[in-house]
Amino acid sequence: MNPPTDAVRFRVRYSDTDQMMTYYNARVLEWFELGRNELIRALGKPYRLWEQEGVRLPVCEAHVEFDGPAQYDDLLRLTTTLSMPSRARVRFDSRVVMDETDRPVCHGYTIHAVVDPGGRPLRPPAWMTEMLTVRNDMR
Amino acid sequence: MNPPTDAVRFRVRYSDTDQMMTYYNARVLEWFELGRNELIRALGKPYRLWEQEGVRLPVCEAHVEFDGPAQYDDLLRLTTTLSMPSRARVRFDSRVVMDETDRPVCHGYTIHAVVDPGGRPLRPPAWMTEMLTVRNDMR
Amino acid sequence: MNPPTDAVRFRVRYSDTDQMMTYYNARVLEWFELGRNELIRALGKPYRLWEQEGVRLPVCEAHVEFDGPAQYDDLLRLTTTLSMPSRARVRFDSRVVMDETDRPVCHGYTIHAVVDPGGRPLRPPAWMTEMLTVRNDMR
Amino acid sequence: MNPPTDAVRFRVRYSDTDQMMTYYNARVLEWFELGRNELIRALGKPYRLWEQEGVRLPVCEAHVEFDGPAQYDDLLRLTTTLSMPSRARVRFDSRVVMDETDRPVCHGYTIHAVVDPGGRPLRPPAWMTEMLTVRNDMR
Repeated sequence: MNPPTDAVRFRVRYSDTDQMMTYYNARVLEWFELGRNELIRALGKPYRLWEQEGVRLPVCEAHVEFDGPAQYDDLLRLTTTLSMPSRARVRFDSRVVMDETDRPVCHGYTIHAVVDPGGRPLRPPAWMTEMLTVRNDMR
Repeated sequence: MNPPTDAVRFRVRYSDTDQMMTYYNARVLEWFELGRNELIRALGKPYRLWEQEGVRLPVCEAHVEFDGPAQYDDLLRLTTTLSMPSRARVRFDSRVVMDETDRPVCHGYTIHAVVDPGGRPLRPPAWMTEMLTVRNDMR
Repeated sequence: MNPPTDAVRFRVRYSDTDQMMTYYNARVLEWFELGRNELIRALGKPYRLWEQEGVRLPVCEAHVEFDGPAQYDDLLRLTTTLSMPSRARVRFDSRVVMDETDRPVCHGYTIHAVVDPGGRPLRPPAWMTEMLTVRNDMR
Repeated sequence: MNPPTDAVRFRVRYSDTDQMMTYYNARVLEWFELGRNELIRALGKPYRLWEQEGVRLPVCEAHVEFDGPAQYDDLLRLTTTLSMPSRARVRFDSRVVMDETDRPVCHGYTIHAVVDPGGRPLRPPAWMTEMLTVRNDMR
């Protein structure tokens, strides 16, 4: 049984770089968002539909470790893995490497609360835990 | 009678730079926003109160010309001038220079619609036109 | 004879949005960058190779008109068209629509100088004008 | 003996917000950068001069915990504290609160390597350790 996981490829944009000739550190959290979105979409229900059903996953905690540089236009591969450390928390582990060589670029995680549109803690609805569990069994 | 105008000083952040060793072009529109906010605040009613009274100024059009480079930590001075080309439009002209030498960095403008929270065109309320007109007379 | 043109599809990221529930205006210039990159790549020589051969295209002027809202996760289609208004200038016209309905989201252009790594005006090298001209003939 | 610390005030920009009606998570790392810059400046030698003398502090690790929302135009206070967990590492602890009420907004840290312009580990020069030590004694 493997946890839900998904990979996306993207290129470093000029807007991701800074004058130290690598990607700017805050941009990594935008990349992680991209990976979360695509993983959730691959699980069968895009996050925007979660929002429409009243489930939100605000970020509680974010952590990044910077493993190496990347320049403009480099093709990166971001792998995202989902887990639920508790009924009230969803965690995404993210790892970015150079697509061609697998050389590490950065990795980290984000931890998310499960809340309603008013920001109050929410017991995860059945479709949500089922979706994650079924996928766990399938893979 | 001079139009309402205001200047703010700020430093180029590392996050504003790119690997061409100058500020990244899109960042200028964030700087222009900063200047609009502070000009509107100086006129006596911060934009967030405009929103609370149901007036929004979404950007319809933005234009930037890039006059010269600026590096991380350079102290810049942004001058913003407001005008109303019509009852339905507010225009902000923005000019950024090196604070110490007045060397041009970039300039441009944004044009904004006057709309209600639903995005429908709105006749500017009396307090809005008065605020702008009074300031015009005062300066 | 048609000018070189190319289309890319991308989704609105959460990081592209603001609290007015649409994309933040400055983000459009990052989207335009994405379109330029992919058009230049499609012409046969990625921009990073231009830089390695000593040709840079800094933005001189940028213009955006905002045609309608777009929300998080909307699938957009960006069409970019290249032209050379003079030997010293390259212009990219950009148009973003909702991919499914063709409803306009925003459009505009950027104008770029042709310079060497030191920022001095450069006569476009033969491969550059040929690449653009050949493509013109081919399409 | 207290560690070097400094506080800066700034307002949430529209560009910092997202459609969840609070600040976008990645923006916090840009705020932390602002706090580091101003703390280093307050210690007597702006970071850009560190770079000119061949000392760079790339981010190795970043951590953020999100404590509460903040809206457009809220006035925030960011307190940054510097420490050297080893000769090869500099750490900045950052804490953001609502300026008026001290209500927590977010907190975290960044850990930085000390490297030369080529990215190789560097023994911190005497002026650097002295600057930090002297300030420690003075406060």
